[in-house]
Amino acid sequence: MSNNTLRIIPLGGLGEVGKNMMAYEYKDHILVVDAGMMFPENDMLGIDYIIPDFQYLIENRHKVAGIIITHGHEDHTGAIRHLLEQVNAPIYATPLTRGLLEVKLGRGGLINQVKLNTVQAGSAIQAGPFKVEFFHVCHSIPDGVGLGITTPAGLVVHTGDYKFDHTPVDNRPTDYGKLAELAARGVLALLADSTNADKPGWTPSERVIDPALDNVFRNAKGRVIISSFASLISRMQQVANASARHKRKIAFAGTSMVDNARMALKLGYLDIPDELMVTVEQALKMNPKEVTLMTTGTQGEPTSIMGRLSTGTNRQFDIREGDTVVLSSHPIPGNEESVYRTINRLFRRGANVIYEGIAPVHVSGHASQEEMKLMLHLVKPKYFVPIHGELRHLKQHAVLAQQVGIPAENIAVIENGQSIEFKDGKMQLGKRIPGGYVFVDGAGVGEIGPSVMREREILSRDGFVLVNLSLDRDSCRLVNEPEFITRGFMPAREADELFEAARKLVQQNIDCSSNGRLQGDLEQTLKSFFYSKTKRRPMVFVTMSEG
Amino acid sequence: MSNNTLRIIPLGGLGEVGKNMMAYEYKDHILVVDAGMMFPENDMLGIDYIIPDFQYLIENRHKVAGIIITHGHEDHTGAIRHLLEQVNAPIYATPLTRGLLEVKLGRGGLINQVKLNTVQAGSAIQAGPFKVEFFHVCHSIPDGVGLGITTPAGLVVHTGDYKFDHTPVDNRPTDYGKLAELAARGVLALLADSTNADKPGWTPSERVIDPALDNVFRNAKGRVIISSFASLISRMQQVANASARHKRKIAFAGTSMVDNARMALKLGYLDIPDELMVTVEQALKMNPKEVTLMTTGTQGEPTSIMGRLSTGTNRQFDIREGDTVVLSSHPIPGNEESVYRTINRLFRRGANVIYEGIAPVHVSGHASQEEMKLMLHLVKPKYFVPIHGELRHLKQHAVLAQQVGIPAENIAVIENGQSIEFKDGKMQLGKRIPGGYVFVDGAGVGEIGPSVMREREILSRDGFVLVNLSLDRDSCRLVNEPEFITRGFMPAREADELFEAARKLVQQNIDCSSNGRLQGDLEQTLKSFFYSKTKRRPMVFVTMSEG
Repeated sequence: MSNNTLRIIPLGGLGEVGKNMMAYEYKDHILVVDAGMMFPENDMLGIDYIIPDFQYLIENRHKVAGIIITHGHEDHTGAIRHLLEQVNAPIYATPLTRGLLEVKLGRGGLINQVKLNTVQAGSAIQAGPFKVEFFHVCHSIPDGVGLGITTPAGLVVHTGDYKFDHTPVDNRPTDYGKLAELAARGVLALLADSTNADKPGWTPSERVIDPALDNVFRNAKGRVIISSFASLISRMQQVANASARHKRKIAFAGTSMVDNARMALKLGYLDIPDELMVTVEQALKMNPKEVTLMTTGTQGEPTSIMGRLSTGTNRQFDIREGDTVVLSSHPIPGNEESVYRTINRLFRRGANVIYEGIAPVHVSGHASQEEMKLMLHLVKPKYFVPIHGELRHLKQHAVLAQQVGIPAENIAVIENGQSIEFKDGKMQLGKRIPGGYVFVDGAGVGEIGPSVMREREILSRDGFVLVNLSLDRDSCRLVNEPEFITRGFMPAREADELFEAARKLVQQNIDCSSNGRLQGDLEQTLKSFFYSKTKRRPMVFVTMSEG
Repeated sequence: MSNNTLRIIPLGGLGEVGKNMMAYEYKDHILVVDAGMMFPENDMLGIDYIIPDFQYLIENRHKVAGIIITHGHEDHTGAIRHLLEQVNAPIYATPLTRGLLEVKLGRGGLINQVKLNTVQAGSAIQAGPFKVEFFHVCHSIPDGVGLGITTPAGLVVHTGDYKFDHTPVDNRPTDYGKLAELAARGVLALLADSTNADKPGWTPSERVIDPALDNVFRNAKGRVIISSFASLISRMQQVANASARHKRKIAFAGTSMVDNARMALKLGYLDIPDELMVTVEQALKMNPKEVTLMTTGTQGEPTSIMGRLSTGTNRQFDIREGDTVVLSSHPIPGNEESVYRTINRLFRRGANVIYEGIAPVHVSGHASQEEMKLMLHLVKPKYFVPIHGELRHLKQHAVLAQQVGIPAENIAVIENGQSIEFKDGKMQLGKRIPGGYVFVDGAGVGEIGPSVMREREILSRDGFVLVNLSLDRDSCRLVNEPEFITRGFMPAREADELFEAARKLVQQNIDCSSNGRLQGDLEQTLKSFFYSKTKRRPMVFVTMSEG
């Protein structure tokens, strides 16, 4: 990279490009944007969560001039603790985002070591050679910002997650004026959210949820139990407002939701009168028609309150006949099965369940195609780089950009780890850095890789069989009966019968002349035997104690 | 059950009630409708597929007077082999459905033992006390039928999978006249497909796919590769027609698609001139702009042609820059992740990928809400039983039925295994029979149950550690170093270090006085040790050979 080049790198993530983390690099300075986590996919067995591979930042930690968090959702904040353990740089965030970071870091105990700086939409900071101007964007959480980043190589606009909502819950529309002002200065490149690039039209305003909630509240025969993400602060406000309109008190349940609500109230991002709020304990004693419970668990997570309610294993309260349950959310891809299973179970327990398919109780926080075109027209960039989406979304966003007049050669569809470079007003592909992701499993960060995952996959499919032999080498005879241990292969009773035959097979195949190969040979023989009998392929191990 | 009672039982299935199998029972006679299979859910580890638990039919096999298959899709035919192995009764099916059954049973070698009877929409059969009148319904496969079942207890209408398509591909709309005629006779109960009960409006006609395909073909720069289900015969016809319009030859790839196409051609349900069809080998030698390849793998199955194309592991051909790939399908719930992953991979290999989100290249084969209301108005049943859907769909279908005037007390939302009974024109809940499902895993049918599944789940999450000890009882000393085997827990190098410490721990904890408890105690000690070090919980086994 020559000296006066701006390099932009979408750092690792799972499928979605640059959603969880981006880096802007100029000379000896790096600006990091966001540090989010992802949920594992269904075949990532045993993994708790996933964070970007930011090895590049670790190796260049002395260059990191600042970390900007655009808004307070987990997919933009969830890896911050891991990042701060490796890279100590000042964080810049708006008040609510900062508050939610404090809640998160407070739990991890890191809160006193980090330099947290509050910024406001409309203000600017200087971090190394980067002047960052923050502008307000609408999203499904208040206080989100996009960035105008003035670099020596030119002005870059980074939208963050956004939508153009004309009637947002907090009455603060996306800052069209600032976008136009940036455009007037001449924008070198636009990096824009592609999440909904395959959704035609405009994303409905958050406001459409209000009449849908009114309808739910009007028809509810008992308690209303609403679940949403713990960071969906605007949804909390809407549910509180609906509760007030329908003469219900509201109680928040679940640590993360309670903590976030408290922080948002303190900072003034939630406006709920004290007399409207009750504790869960109080709520449970009240007339069901006067109560709203708001909680987490929209993705059918078995350990969430909603998950536990669906299986009758929640500690504090149960679903009762007459409850109305609202899932104010959209299933994250891969979670559809568990979400629908949870819905069916809630119905089975006597609840009436309202979800996105049935009523407009959720809208997306991301721009749809017409909004994407508007963003492109407002910002008028020379170059366009779709970010925040899977490859299929980026490709579609690139098609939209061409429709509004950006030449194909001025659009770069890149994947995580593939940098792009700007020099003398020209864009080109830059070097590739590791752009993968890192599994977090228990205490292990990055320890679990493809080989362990492959073992888990095999074990998950057909289990294992272990045979323990006590062999007297001199006589080449078994001292005891071979001992079999199996899990995940077949039920104990059926296994007994099969192992009886396997035991004979082992005894017939003890051959001490096959020096050193006996164990391996026996394992092969047993594998073939088990496959012929069951058409399954368990892992097979033979251990041997020689007398 | 009193003597003159009609009992209707939705037999086992996975979530969707009565979709895969239903039984109608009157005195000593049982009529079976459909025998389908289901795909396992993501957490049903290692399972190949799932079939209904039809233990009730096995126990009452002498009563089974007939098996009706309403149409040729896997979720209605896929368990037929397993059923016929236990219950030998005549099968009744329309010509195409029969043809597809022959293909399926031919592969299983059962074809010569079964009594296959061809019926026509518009005809009727008598099976025991049941007079079954078949009427044509539109669906995403030709030759589907609904049933008017005259029983001594009254007339029941069973829709099967249906939609009201005014312009179906085969020009045969659903038989409104027959539905009206049945209604005129007085319908005791309607059992109707609920799959799309949460979809407002009307399902678009299959015909809307034609202009979408034209658009794809017009813009395709190279080969067009279209994937769909092997049983979506109408889609084959539409793709062949589009190929003809755009001067391309069509080749079918994949055994099941080729077999089904051949059968449909032979029976006249596919109308493709010989000169339009080429083999895959021929197609690969032709000008890419003159070729359409049609294949399977819409669900991202790794072993399907489309799955292999996405990973560059297909034997016969690869994706080339300039290919246009069309997924003419909708992800089955639970498959979204693998479908989208496949799409991203195909893009990465240089294909332009068109899928449901991007263009109307697929429509549902099931009725939406307005069609469901039309069905209710046409049939005018006294009682209504929503079937073919998860509980959430049945509940919604029940709401629709009330909207069109069926009293709530005349609607029964039941789950698999819960029978309903009709006697003297009255409906009531009947006895419960096992209504679960059976896992097919390798050669095992019903062998794998919750306990093995639970073992697989634990193994898939954290793997296992096995420690093999050779102990000299007399001295209570280890003869050799403890041997460790692990899989799915942690990578070998990291494990070595951990096991070094674990070895010491074992040596310290050998206590031969704890008669018989030594193994169990050591396992507990190691479990705690591994958890404290890794925050993971592998299965731990200690085996012991005593000298």
